[in-house]
Amino acid sequence: MPESLFAGIDIGGTNTRLGLVDPSGRIHWRDTFATSDYPDAPSLIKHIHESLISGMRSLNGNYELSAIGVGAPNSSNSKGTVEHAANLSWKGVVRIKKMFQEISGVPVSLTNDAKAAAIGEMLYGHAKGMTNFVLITLGTGLGSGIIVNGEPVYGHDGFAGEIGHTLVIPHGRSCGCGRKGCLEQYCSASGIVKTYREILRSTGVVQGNFEDETISARQVFEKALSGDEAAFYAFNYTGEMLGYALANTVAYLAPESIFLLGGLANAGELLLNPTIISFEKNVLNVWKNKIKIRLSGLPENDAAILGAAALARKELINIK
Amino acid sequence: MPESLFAGIDIGGTNTRLGLVDPSGRIHWRDTFATSDYPDAPSLIKHIHESLISGMRSLNGNYELSAIGVGAPNSSNSKGTVEHAANLSWKGVVRIKKMFQEISGVPVSLTNDAKAAAIGEMLYGHAKGMTNFVLITLGTGLGSGIIVNGEPVYGHDGFAGEIGHTLVIPHGRSCGCGRKGCLEQYCSASGIVKTYREILRSTGVVQGNFEDETISARQVFEKALSGDEAAFYAFNYTGEMLGYALANTVAYLAPESIFLLGGLANAGELLLNPTIISFEKNVLNVWKNKIKIRLSGLPENDAAILGAAALARKELINIK
Repeated sequence: MPESLFAGIDIGGTNTRLGLVDPSGRIHWRDTFATSDYPDAPSLIKHIHESLISGMRSLNGNYELSAIGVGAPNSSNSKGTVEHAANLSWKGVVRIKKMFQEISGVPVSLTNDAKAAAIGEMLYGHAKGMTNFVLITLGTGLGSGIIVNGEPVYGHDGFAGEIGHTLVIPHGRSCGCGRKGCLEQYCSASGIVKTYREILRSTGVVQGNFEDETISARQVFEKALSGDEAAFYAFNYTGEMLGYALANTVAYLAPESIFLLGGLANAGELLLNPTIISFEKNVLNVWKNKIKIRLSGLPENDAAILGAAALARKELINIK
Repeated sequence: MPESLFAGIDIGGTNTRLGLVDPSGRIHWRDTFATSDYPDAPSLIKHIHESLISGMRSLNGNYELSAIGVGAPNSSNSKGTVEHAANLSWKGVVRIKKMFQEISGVPVSLTNDAKAAAIGEMLYGHAKGMTNFVLITLGTGLGSGIIVNGEPVYGHDGFAGEIGHTLVIPHGRSCGCGRKGCLEQYCSASGIVKTYREILRSTGVVQGNFEDETISARQVFEKALSGDEAAFYAFNYTGEMLGYALANTVAYLAPESIFLLGGLANAGELLLNPTIISFEKNVLNVWKNKIKIRLSGLPENDAAILGAAALARKELINIK
C-alpha cells in the first residue's frame, strides 16, 4: 500500500511555498515561487497543482497524495473562501477550496496562513503541549493564529484572528483595508519601511515624498546592524508598537506564550528586545513578567506548510 | 428528597447581588446590598453567607443548597482567586473560593462576573444557541465574557477577557490599574462621567477641577433625555469609543453577536445608536453589516446570578 503524503501550501503576500509532508511531519519535497507571478487565483492554483504533480513524480518511493491543506490570508475554513485579501492581487470573494478540489480530485482543507503556522507550531515547534497561545506572522502584513483550549479560534464565520487589522492609532497610517491605524501598518515588513522613511524625513536626512526609492525591510535590518541610527530606531519603534498591541492581545486571551514568525521576526533580538520591553511596560499588572514572547521554534518557511498539511490530515481523518 | 438550589452571587464594584436558583433557571429568592458596606473580603463573604442562610430559611418548600457560584471581577476560575481588583477595595490576591468553601461547606465555583453573565446570556438570554459571542458589562468598569465554541475563554491562567483593560488611546486617561488609555476609562459609568466633565470644562460651562461635585452616570443619562447637549454628546462620544473598541474585538474573535449589559447599557438607544454607527465605520470590510450589537436579553440584575448558579451546577455535575 502506498504511503500517504499531504500537501501543505502556504500562500503569502510575497511568496507561495509548498511541501509534501508525511504523517510524522517530515517534508519530502518543497517548492517556492513568487505569488505575484500569477495575476489571479485560477492561474496560481493551476501552477501549484502542476508543481505538486511534478513533486510527487520526483519522489523515490510508493506514495500517494491523500489531501491538500492550504493556508492563505483572509480565508475562511468553514466557507472555503478567501475574501477581500488586502495583500493579494485577488479581488472580492474567491472560492479557492472548491477550485483546488476540482483540479486535484482530493479533499482540500483551507485555513488562514497564520492559523496554519500556529497549528504547525503546536504540533512540531515550541508550542508543543501548550493549549493557549498566539502566533504572530510578521511578513508583508501581520497575521495571527489564536489557539484556545488546543484549537484554532475561527469565530462565527471563520475569519477570527485578524490582529493585524486591529486599530492601534486612532486616525493613524492608511491601510490597504481602507481604514486608518491598523497594527500591520506599523508592525510588518512594509510597516517598518514606512517607519524608516518617516524617521529620515523627520530628521531632515531625506526631503520630499521618498516613495520612488525602493528600500526593503531586509535593507533596514542590514542598515541597523551596520550602525545606522535611523534604522535602529525604526526597529525600536516597531517593537514598541508591537509590545503595546500584544498587551491588548493578552487582555483578550491570556495566552501562555506569544510566538513571532516571518521575515521581520528574522531580525531576532533587534526586534524582540524592544517588543518585550514595551510589552512589559504596557501589559496589565496581573500578567507582568509572566508571558513569554519568543521566536517560533520552526524555520519560517516550514511552519505554515507543516500546519496546513497537518490540518488536511486531521480533516481527512474526521471525514473517514 | 429535597430539591437542589444553587446560589448565584454577583460581586460588582458597586453592588453585590445574590439569588437562589433552581436547575430550570428560576430565581426563588434574591438579595442586594452595597459591596462597599463591607471593607474586606472576609466581612463581605460572612455577610453573603448569613444572607444565604436566611434566604434558604425563608423559602416554603423542601430545598437544599447544593453549591455556590460566585462571579467577581479580576477572578480566576482555575486558581479560585480574585487578584488586584481595581474596582474593589480588596488588595492583592484574595483566595475567595477557599473562603466561601470553608464558611459554607458546599462546593464553590468562581468565575469573572462578566463571564458569569455571558453564561447566563447563553443559557437563558438572547445568546441561546450561539457558540461564538461576546458580552460586555458596562458598570463601574467595563467587563467582558468571551464565548468561543460554546465555552467561556479563560486563557492560560483564568484571567482572559479583560477587554476593559485594552489600551485604546495611547497616553490616554489614567486608569485604576496604573496604566493610561484603558477602554473602561471611556466606556463605563465612571468613564461617561469623566467625559461629561471634560465637555463642560472644554466648553467653559464649568471651570477648574470640578471633582468635588458628584454627578452619576444616571444623572448624565437624565440630563441627556431632558435635552442637555453636553450630556447627549457624552453618550455619543462613549458610543464612538465603544464602537471603535468593538471593531477590534471582532478582529480578534469574529463573534456572531455582541451583547451589552449593565447600568450604562440601560441608557438603551442613546448609547446603542452611536455605538453601532462607530462600529460599522471602524470594523474591517469582511464584517460590515454582519454583526449584531444589541442589549442583553436578561434583566441586568439576573444575568450574572443565573450564570454563576449555572456554572456551580455544571461544575458540581462534573465532580460527581
